[in-house]
Amino acid sequence: MLSVIRDLTVKDVRFPTSVEQLGSDAMHTDPDYSAAYVVLETDCNLRGFGLTFTLGKGTEIGEKNSSYKYGKHCLFTHQMLMEGYPAYTTSCAWIGYSDQLLQQLCTDALRSGWTKFKVKVGADLEDDVRRCRLIRETIGPNNTMMIDANQRWDVAEAIEWVSRLAEFKPLWIEEPTSPDDILGHATISKALAPYGIGVATGEQCHNRVMFKQFLQAAALQFVQIDACRLGSVNENLAVLLMAHKFKVPVCPHAGGVGLCELMQHLILFDYICVSVSLSNRMCEFVDHLHEHFTSPVVIQNACYMPPKDPGYSCEMFESSVRRHQFPDGDVWRLDMKK
Amino acid sequence: MLSVIRDLTVKDVRFPTSVEQLGSDAMHTDPDYSAAYVVLETDCNLRGFGLTFTLGKGTEIGEKNSSYKYGKHCLFTHQMLMEGYPAYTTSCAWIGYSDQLLQQLCTDALRSGWTKFKVKVGADLEDDVRRCRLIRETIGPNNTMMIDANQRWDVAEAIEWVSRLAEFKPLWIEEPTSPDDILGHATISKALAPYGIGVATGEQCHNRVMFKQFLQAAALQFVQIDACRLGSVNENLAVLLMAHKFKVPVCPHAGGVGLCELMQHLILFDYICVSVSLSNRMCEFVDHLHEHFTSPVVIQNACYMPPKDPGYSCEMFESSVRRHQFPDGDVWRLDMKK
Repeated sequence: MLSVIRDLTVKDVRFPTSVEQLGSDAMHTDPDYSAAYVVLETDCNLRGFGLTFTLGKGTEIGEKNSSYKYGKHCLFTHQMLMEGYPAYTTSCAWIGYSDQLLQQLCTDALRSGWTKFKVKVGADLEDDVRRCRLIRETIGPNNTMMIDANQRWDVAEAIEWVSRLAEFKPLWIEEPTSPDDILGHATISKALAPYGIGVATGEQCHNRVMFKQFLQAAALQFVQIDACRLGSVNENLAVLLMAHKFKVPVCPHAGGVGLCELMQHLILFDYICVSVSLSNRMCEFVDHLHEHFTSPVVIQNACYMPPKDPGYSCEMFESSVRRHQFPDGDVWRLDMKK
Repeated sequence: MLSVIRDLTVKDVRFPTSVEQLGSDAMHTDPDYSAAYVVLETDCNLRGFGLTFTLGKGTEIGEKNSSYKYGKHCLFTHQMLMEGYPAYTTSCAWIGYSDQLLQQLCTDALRSGWTKFKVKVGADLEDDVRRCRLIRETIGPNNTMMIDANQRWDVAEAIEWVSRLAEFKPLWIEEPTSPDDILGHATISKALAPYGIGVATGEQCHNRVMFKQFLQAAALQFVQIDACRLGSVNENLAVLLMAHKFKVPVCPHAGGVGLCELMQHLILFDYICVSVSLSNRMCEFVDHLHEHFTSPVVIQNACYMPPKDPGYSCEMFESSVRRHQFPDGDVWRLDMKK
């Protein structure tokens, strides 16, 4: 059955996450997580949904639509259906959190079955040493810690800073420097290899040509594709295939608004059709803003459970869109009156 | 004297250049040269002007303001004042031009003193062979020819295609492949070095980090900065300094709307304060749309003569802005009625 697209609406939806320092890191001290949200209406009862994640201003500049529908015909493997795809959590250690809160969130997360934790670093070295020590002590020697500098350093600085944090055994350093600096990342990778620390990057990587070079230059050891940064599903698939060729694991960027919802589809595809491996692989998870989606991700025992609804899982509740639409939604109208 | 900025206006100005195939190349077959044009008003009689060049759609997405004022205190060398900065012309060989027009424009340009000619290539190899042969025969063996593929090829294809055109002795191949593919450009540079053909790129290069890597990887032999692509004058200066360190000549991208007007300032700065050399150096010139500027570039004997008015030379006539403003200016209103 052919159906015709009759209407397309785009909404600027913003969540005032900066109030609680959710999402704070060395570069984004005050982020309001936002989305350009697209709805397609057809002449039958089908509707299409798409979004791209931004920090607010980005929504004004333009939006890439990711609306995409496919059937339930994927052959999930038995393992995925039963256990899900392994995730790590970024929710425990934003840079703006107090030591007490870090410790409490890590303890709670351990109790919920989390074993892999990402820590934001890069603002102040002594601060990072203290926070990493605290978290390593809390999670113990056998769980996994990753650190993320959000591009804060230049190349030499990155090597020096991360060397100081090596004693806490991070698996990777994420975004140590400018995301465009392929050769810089290669230098950092080489310098940190003796510590067993890999370089992870890709959430700001805008096309397959950049990823191709990162792989060619051995400039990363973990590929962090982003469902919205790369234009379209196809561009993401191209990177999955290249990563497989170079034998580098894909550990996607998620969080934001709806990125987890989108990314679960891509990473399940990677497992089932491309890499067929979970070695050194995991998908980021951030525990916020899922309540605005009609079909939010399901996490069980620190794993993404395969979605059962059709589509790319990015339909938002109409009430959420209405409340958070910028600048006329209730959340922003009331905020501006202050 | 301190003055205060009282008002800022931004206008979307577009010129219907596609009608005459001005600006056509292997990737842009139908371009309307356009600008996001900014005017600052102050509380005294000073006004500031800035623009960024786009192909129309880009004006809708956003604009970077480059408004900048400085005095007449630069120490132009005697040579610059008398002879100007050497230019090459791109106006003779757009890809949409007929053989007859190519030959006529090259003949006219030779008569006006031009010695360096850029030819658009990359759509069809046999077509390119014929056009390059025609132009080389017209301009003779001692004048300079450059070829420009506007990113049309992949790496292997670029090497093969340009090898076929080597007999016409181009000085450089410009934008042979994706402008992000630093390692690809390095491979092409290496393969074409035996022919004496350099690789030129940079007009799509968005920051100093990308240029740093192009230089580190020996991926280009000519640096083509763009006054509007690089954010701000400062980012351009950073690239001039790096190119000097790596001993690679800067041959800027110009043309578009107002790029020649802006770029003459940067390239004169390069000559006077950084490179102090004209070896293998020249600035692009395209002979259109200058009539809309109150202080257009002055070309004498195929050289840019140093500008004598203060400022960054980007004030447009109010009548030009009014006529070409999109979509309400006369040019566009009448065009849409057709």
